[in-house]
Amino acid sequence: MNKITILIHCKDRPNIIASVTNFIAKEGGNIVYIDQHVDREQNIFFMRLESEFASESFSTNAFKGVFKSELADTFEMKWRIYSSEKKPKMALFISKYDHCLYDLLGRYNSGELNLEIPFIISNHLDLKTIADNFKIPFHHIPVTKATKAEAEEQQLKLLEAHNIDFIVLARYMQIVSGKLINKYPNKIINIHHSFLPAFVGAKPYHSAYKRGVKIIGATSHYVTEELDAGPIIEQDVTRVTHAHAISDLISKGRDLEKIVLANAVKLHADRKVMVFNNKTVVFS
Amino acid sequence: MNKITILIHCKDRPNIIASVTNFIAKEGGNIVYIDQHVDREQNIFFMRLESEFASESFSTNAFKGVFKSELADTFEMKWRIYSSEKKPKMALFISKYDHCLYDLLGRYNSGELNLEIPFIISNHLDLKTIADNFKIPFHHIPVTKATKAEAEEQQLKLLEAHNIDFIVLARYMQIVSGKLINKYPNKIINIHHSFLPAFVGAKPYHSAYKRGVKIIGATSHYVTEELDAGPIIEQDVTRVTHAHAISDLISKGRDLEKIVLANAVKLHADRKVMVFNNKTVVFS
Amino acid sequence: MNKITILIHCKDRPNIIASVTNFIAKEGGNIVYIDQHVDREQNIFFMRLESEFASESFSTNAFKGVFKSELADTFEMKWRIYSSEKKPKMALFISKYDHCLYDLLGRYNSGELNLEIPFIISNHLDLKTIADNFKIPFHHIPVTKATKAEAEEQQLKLLEAHNIDFIVLARYMQIVSGKLINKYPNKIINIHHSFLPAFVGAKPYHSAYKRGVKIIGATSHYVTEELDAGPIIEQDVTRVTHAHAISDLISKGRDLEKIVLANAVKLHADRKVMVFNNKTVVFS
Amino acid sequence: MNKITILIHCKDRPNIIASVTNFIAKEGGNIVYIDQHVDREQNIFFMRLESEFASESFSTNAFKGVFKSELADTFEMKWRIYSSEKKPKMALFISKYDHCLYDLLGRYNSGELNLEIPFIISNHLDLKTIADNFKIPFHHIPVTKATKAEAEEQQLKLLEAHNIDFIVLARYMQIVSGKLINKYPNKIINIHHSFLPAFVGAKPYHSAYKRGVKIIGATSHYVTEELDAGPIIEQDVTRVTHAHAISDLISKGRDLEKIVLANAVKLHADRKVMVFNNKTVVFS
Repeated sequence: MNKITILIHCKDRPNIIASVTNFIAKEGGNIVYIDQHVDREQNIFFMRLESEFASESFSTNAFKGVFKSELADTFEMKWRIYSSEKKPKMALFISKYDHCLYDLLGRYNSGELNLEIPFIISNHLDLKTIADNFKIPFHHIPVTKATKAEAEEQQLKLLEAHNIDFIVLARYMQIVSGKLINKYPNKIINIHHSFLPAFVGAKPYHSAYKRGVKIIGATSHYVTEELDAGPIIEQDVTRVTHAHAISDLISKGRDLEKIVLANAVKLHADRKVMVFNNKTVVFS
Repeated sequence: MNKITILIHCKDRPNIIASVTNFIAKEGGNIVYIDQHVDREQNIFFMRLESEFASESFSTNAFKGVFKSELADTFEMKWRIYSSEKKPKMALFISKYDHCLYDLLGRYNSGELNLEIPFIISNHLDLKTIADNFKIPFHHIPVTKATKAEAEEQQLKLLEAHNIDFIVLARYMQIVSGKLINKYPNKIINIHHSFLPAFVGAKPYHSAYKRGVKIIGATSHYVTEELDAGPIIEQDVTRVTHAHAISDLISKGRDLEKIVLANAVKLHADRKVMVFNNKTVVFS
Repeated sequence: MNKITILIHCKDRPNIIASVTNFIAKEGGNIVYIDQHVDREQNIFFMRLESEFASESFSTNAFKGVFKSELADTFEMKWRIYSSEKKPKMALFISKYDHCLYDLLGRYNSGELNLEIPFIISNHLDLKTIADNFKIPFHHIPVTKATKAEAEEQQLKLLEAHNIDFIVLARYMQIVSGKLINKYPNKIINIHHSFLPAFVGAKPYHSAYKRGVKIIGATSHYVTEELDAGPIIEQDVTRVTHAHAISDLISKGRDLEKIVLANAVKLHADRKVMVFNNKTVVFS
Repeated sequence: MNKITILIHCKDRPNIIASVTNFIAKEGGNIVYIDQHVDREQNIFFMRLESEFASESFSTNAFKGVFKSELADTFEMKWRIYSSEKKPKMALFISKYDHCLYDLLGRYNSGELNLEIPFIISNHLDLKTIADNFKIPFHHIPVTKATKAEAEEQQLKLLEAHNIDFIVLARYMQIVSGKLINKYPNKIINIHHSFLPAFVGAKPYHSAYKRGVKIIGATSHYVTEELDAGPIIEQDVTRVTHAHAISDLISKGRDLEKIVLANAVKLHADRKVMVFNNKTVVFS
């Protein structure tokens, strides 16, 4: 049994749903999941569809060809088609904080994540032992002002050599360059330790403490060139009171960060996220 | 423009989605919303679909006929089709607590609810003034052990005379009989002041206090003959601590109850809830 | 039995707690509630205390005198003492939105709020019927650019004539002047329809929609001269998805707004909120 | 500087707070934290207090003696006094699930937990590698019906040999005997994968799925002889829908379990939990 996932968006107009489902039926597929959304402000149609094809001769690449010529071109669709067999490859960028790392590797080890982690990149050596314990190759690429461009070249080489599909910045603490972002558009996932758009930039827990908010949050988003302004994938929050010091906010925030990042990673790896005009459609 | 909502469930099998969407296209409809769910434990397919028909000669009743003979019978579907023009009629049963009543009538008055409230029934006179202020006919039908059967007859007469579509027990505090339940299956919505299935029955806040839970809840469900065991439509919870007395739980609970009940009423009135095997599918 | 509530803050130093509790014991009081907080960033001590005095000759005013000379002056305390008998008087400012009004008046009517509402002020007539139904005097004071100063004089006269203790802006939709704010410092409670500090100013739900956040919120705060930047009393949030249109955010937000505002009003009326350096300490 | 934490409960009566704070002042202590609660149903007074003593000659044991004779005996207090220097020793019981283990050891390694973990006990070998990676001694004590009593003897020997203060069952999946419970009353912390008291016993996610709840939860509680009925320390919940299969509930539940258990462990280790009549008072 072959299973594929199709993601589509295009200008909304009548009969898209019927045309797509007809096409799948004609090709011998059985739709096992369908979800759709129309953004009425922008008049854009979004669809996510999972279909099974029993035929032994089914080929994802051949299907893509027919899909394009017979359907996608007509509706001027932007589309992506994935075979369920192929797990996406994720590169993990870390620095000195270990809570997101432990959490992601614990899940990875337990088989909870539908992806592969060919390697970890860090600008510090502090967390190498953890990578070693989990038997994931660890590349130490220090980053200084002077070496930043060169460091990024090293990163790019590794990413390309391993055919990396997406990158996760697990509290990487470095601003990645436009060059990297443009090579991996909507494919670099960051975790920011605030409820965006509140408290953009450095030290959000300090700012939250100073403002006296009663709820703190964490936000996972795709990285764009504007700092902390990319499409939001997932957010969560927790209550705090006047009795919580900054250190308490940081500690409570760690739990938010790791859960929110893990959820965003799962949604992305399961091809449930679409991006349009700096916003996400999440078919969860 | 005619708009209809279709709710379907049947045994799952290949090509249901394509068949349904094909049928709608053939009939000249444009699907503006589609959502589907497969319960893989029980192998049941559920679908909710909204479609627009431009033709001036479109008739919902005629469509139902074709839908049945050409599609529903083939797949042995259970189905319901609603015209968007027709607002459902809701009867409100109350007793002495006013918080859900104020909340529902406030929303009703503001046009937030897509329904009509032809009348209110209460076994006490305490809240008559509120009904009067909102200009909703108020029927006082006292209930005692001796008069229970007779009271229910009066209720049934009113319900039938006004072609009531569904009933909301807004803290009605009386157990309704099997007779009423069978006349309105999955059409009587209750609000229970606990996080079901915890604390079934009377005085759930007292039980929650005694057990020392750290979170309390409220549950809106369809009424079945087994007490507080019907299909759950909506739940919500809030945190409590050791410092909250029973009276605090009751007070915090009131806010849960009114929001949860209002959400359940909106979901039902918008035809977003399906019931199968004592569980709901909520296409929200 | 006389019951008083004492709120204190001062520079932190050793033995404050023992000195306060000693003083109460010496005066014949029995402490029934004590809570304290030290802000270690700013080295400020905060305390809330409830004490009962059995003596028939007890007078809150006499107690205040002794408290000041024997205790408060020594520690250079800022303090407030309230008799539990005296309910605070609250003025309600409204405009055209009714959800917070229905909610507050419903609670008021049920005896849930420990306060008095001598009157309602509105710049429009739309909600007069609601005030009438609840039998609360309604003053229509229109506000235009030209009449703003004059309108505020009318408001001030009413506030003073009724010895109003605090003001609640229940979606009043007007910016109140520095003059009013300075007469009622940390005594004007506003509800802002966003999770502050995100989305300050007008149309926060539109901004939230545009940014694609996955959670929306509401914030109740004391009004200061800087817009939406005053001390936060209470916040709450709810999840949203890509499928929610702006109108859905507004609808879901209404439920947040009314609950958050009601909670803030209760905390303030129960003298559980202290303000220092634009932040609140909430002894809940 | 010596810092101690005092936990007290006794029958409520006038002047307890003043007497305690007076006593501390007389002994030369400066109270840096005080919190109190009165259970008005049962008329029990609870207090938690942190105090600093500057004197170099201060001894916790000597203080305990004076505290008992001069204060505790008078009020017939139950009390515990801890020196902040002494970290509690926690034994970790595990089985085959690794998510709580990874989470607790990650926090332990990062210095987030104020405790020591002298060893891990498991009835299976599956997770030995994790313990090894974190360099915590791992004792494999298999449990079968036949060897249960003998296995518990081995456990008890280890617990006593290491002066263990409390035990954490991190998804241990075995029912511990009354003998162990009585040796460690309110000192064995379990994580149950439901929102207790709903879904007591085995397979709670299956039961939650069957009942069609819209929210699932996790509960951390002290173990008593009655299954899943001990005093609740901490609970948390998350939303689910009809679209979540049992495997999804299990996956979402893992995140709840690990966070709730970690919070309960921190509260207990920081001596913030008191137990009375099968309920907790949590001074957080």
